[in-house]
Amino acid sequence: MRDVAVIGIGMTKFGELWTMSIRDMFVQAALDAIKDAKVDHIDSMYVGTMSSGLFVGQEHIGAVMADYLGMTPIPASRVESACASGGVSFRQAFLEVASGHSDIVLAGGVEKMTDGADVTEALATAADQEYEVYQGVTFPGLYAMIANAHMNEFGTTREQLAHVSVKNHKNGSKNPNAQFRSPVTLEQVMKSTLVADPLRLLDCSPVSDGAACVILCPLEMAKKITNHPVKVIASAQASDTIALHSRESFTTLNAVKHAAEKAYKQANLTPNKIQFAEVHDCFSIAEIVVTEDLGFFGKGKGGQAVEKGLTSLEGKIPINTSGGLKSKGHPVGATGIAQIIEVYEQLTNQAGDRQIKNAKVGLAQNMGGSGASCLIHILEAV
Amino acid sequence: MRDVAVIGIGMTKFGELWTMSIRDMFVQAALDAIKDAKVDHIDSMYVGTMSSGLFVGQEHIGAVMADYLGMTPIPASRVESACASGGVSFRQAFLEVASGHSDIVLAGGVEKMTDGADVTEALATAADQEYEVYQGVTFPGLYAMIANAHMNEFGTTREQLAHVSVKNHKNGSKNPNAQFRSPVTLEQVMKSTLVADPLRLLDCSPVSDGAACVILCPLEMAKKITNHPVKVIASAQASDTIALHSRESFTTLNAVKHAAEKAYKQANLTPNKIQFAEVHDCFSIAEIVVTEDLGFFGKGKGGQAVEKGLTSLEGKIPINTSGGLKSKGHPVGATGIAQIIEVYEQLTNQAGDRQIKNAKVGLAQNMGGSGASCLIHILEAV
Repeated sequence: MRDVAVIGIGMTKFGELWTMSIRDMFVQAALDAIKDAKVDHIDSMYVGTMSSGLFVGQEHIGAVMADYLGMTPIPASRVESACASGGVSFRQAFLEVASGHSDIVLAGGVEKMTDGADVTEALATAADQEYEVYQGVTFPGLYAMIANAHMNEFGTTREQLAHVSVKNHKNGSKNPNAQFRSPVTLEQVMKSTLVADPLRLLDCSPVSDGAACVILCPLEMAKKITNHPVKVIASAQASDTIALHSRESFTTLNAVKHAAEKAYKQANLTPNKIQFAEVHDCFSIAEIVVTEDLGFFGKGKGGQAVEKGLTSLEGKIPINTSGGLKSKGHPVGATGIAQIIEVYEQLTNQAGDRQIKNAKVGLAQNMGGSGASCLIHILEAV
Repeated sequence: MRDVAVIGIGMTKFGELWTMSIRDMFVQAALDAIKDAKVDHIDSMYVGTMSSGLFVGQEHIGAVMADYLGMTPIPASRVESACASGGVSFRQAFLEVASGHSDIVLAGGVEKMTDGADVTEALATAADQEYEVYQGVTFPGLYAMIANAHMNEFGTTREQLAHVSVKNHKNGSKNPNAQFRSPVTLEQVMKSTLVADPLRLLDCSPVSDGAACVILCPLEMAKKITNHPVKVIASAQASDTIALHSRESFTTLNAVKHAAEKAYKQANLTPNKIQFAEVHDCFSIAEIVVTEDLGFFGKGKGGQAVEKGLTSLEGKIPINTSGGLKSKGHPVGATGIAQIIEVYEQLTNQAGDRQIKNAKVGLAQNMGGSGASCLIHILEAV
């Protein structure tokens, strides 16, 4: 396999983008990424989208985007693993470049969620339709069960959950592309509307529109194009049971553990060498569980870690410097790519007010459903 | 890139499978393929599905299938390019094995279309929703426009269109997995219900349920497992404008031409070296246009070719020996893989009553929408 690098990024602001269609958003992000990469063409492209069929009545979104980009006849495919669709898009582009089949590949993600579809119902198609959703549970309920189990098993507190949101809103306030740029207080989170006990409105990532794209190429080529290539040192993916009730434990996400194990092995490093990470905080509890399963903290210690500030911008291992899904927004198909973009910006010293010092190695963890899919990528400045 | 081979196949019968869910179908096809390949595990898997969200309310189908197969935590992703989703699945598995990242990869496709969704509306999401479908046109109408243009430009006759269906039903009558195993006469096709002038009911592929899976591995490994490995000598993909009205011509499918050019170059051969092919006959006219754009016949000569019997089982270049989409059935996500299975069966002398003699090199051409996506794979017995 050839070494692969990221050489360009582009994304829309995340939010309620009433004036932009799914095509407009993707084209803007893709053209920005191509411009940023300083390439004059792309060989092929992937589009991560969870459910453009249910959200906007348009499947076949790979060809749609190649067309609207003016890039036909290049190969263009849509990939999907629910909210991890962006991560899958990045992985397929990585594999295609690594194989030697193509040199310059665009990995993108997009979702248009505010055009009138029943968002909770559409998102619920990422859970087990036959055995979970038909019984009436949707994602806030599933993650609430995880939260209750974690609180019961490890003494994680309601306040610790709130600390995740407070930290991520603080980070997001420094991100020009974030949907919510207002800090929130612990009290505001604790008093926000109850959604699914113990999760409240400010524990939940929002409904968002947005697109994000990156350009990958062989590392050797990247070194000729840019002075700051970012190498992909691990691409790992794992699956777990689609239904939460099929798992041995509600408080460990096996797909995260398996993918992390593979990623660390590929990158030949241990979790303590990761300087910062973007993780999939679709709900506050998710960030706590994931930071444990990635090996950053012991099992059951994730709540204490965020409370102590270990994951803040100035902490031992900053988590979700972008603001995370909570504050930056969560256009589901775009999220996995937006995470890569944050890692890239940190590694290339472009993260502005949220820049962490001497960033050399960062991780992006993207998740589908209640953890039935997990994609982990580790990037290194070279 | 490593050489890649197909070493096992499995598929359900295609048809109205009332007793099987989308999970049941995929699991049966996947287990049959794994058994046929004589492997004890798979490293990862792809599932091609056009619109499980709209058809059965279930996205995240990669993880669902890994779970129901009992294969977690392997990586499992869904891929989609409308009716070419199966072709994309095969291509991604090919690239993953070729890269060296994985050794044994399952490429599958599935669609459950008879569970109550509005099939024509769901399929129409593969066309340009904003500029075609909102104006009232769906796929029979789009392919009818192609047929009218072809008849007008080249003198293709209504009878020639019917010959495609007659031939494919004849072939399908010899295929135990085909949805329709009854031959039809020219008169029956010509007198069948008018759908979109000039296309009649028996010009149209049916609504089907079904799943198909194949196993890929490095050629060197394949040689140790089986005495009849089938090598993938080309994998090519191309895109075209999503809307028919954006194209210079209605009678040439540019994505097919571009993908064919790349495929022949990769395989280092000319169209006349292809002994037989499975092509995407979603409507009778599609087979005629595609056999021209693949270079088997001159532009405008496809209708005469089928009328003269050049594409019959005993002809110069048998087309759709399986019965094609018309007679075998068209569960859209599964079709691209089922085409590969037919080519594999022919190359390994397992095609029974429809076996062609001395089959060494075959081609599979899978298409999405009105030709906005095209996947071409060429396989060779080694």
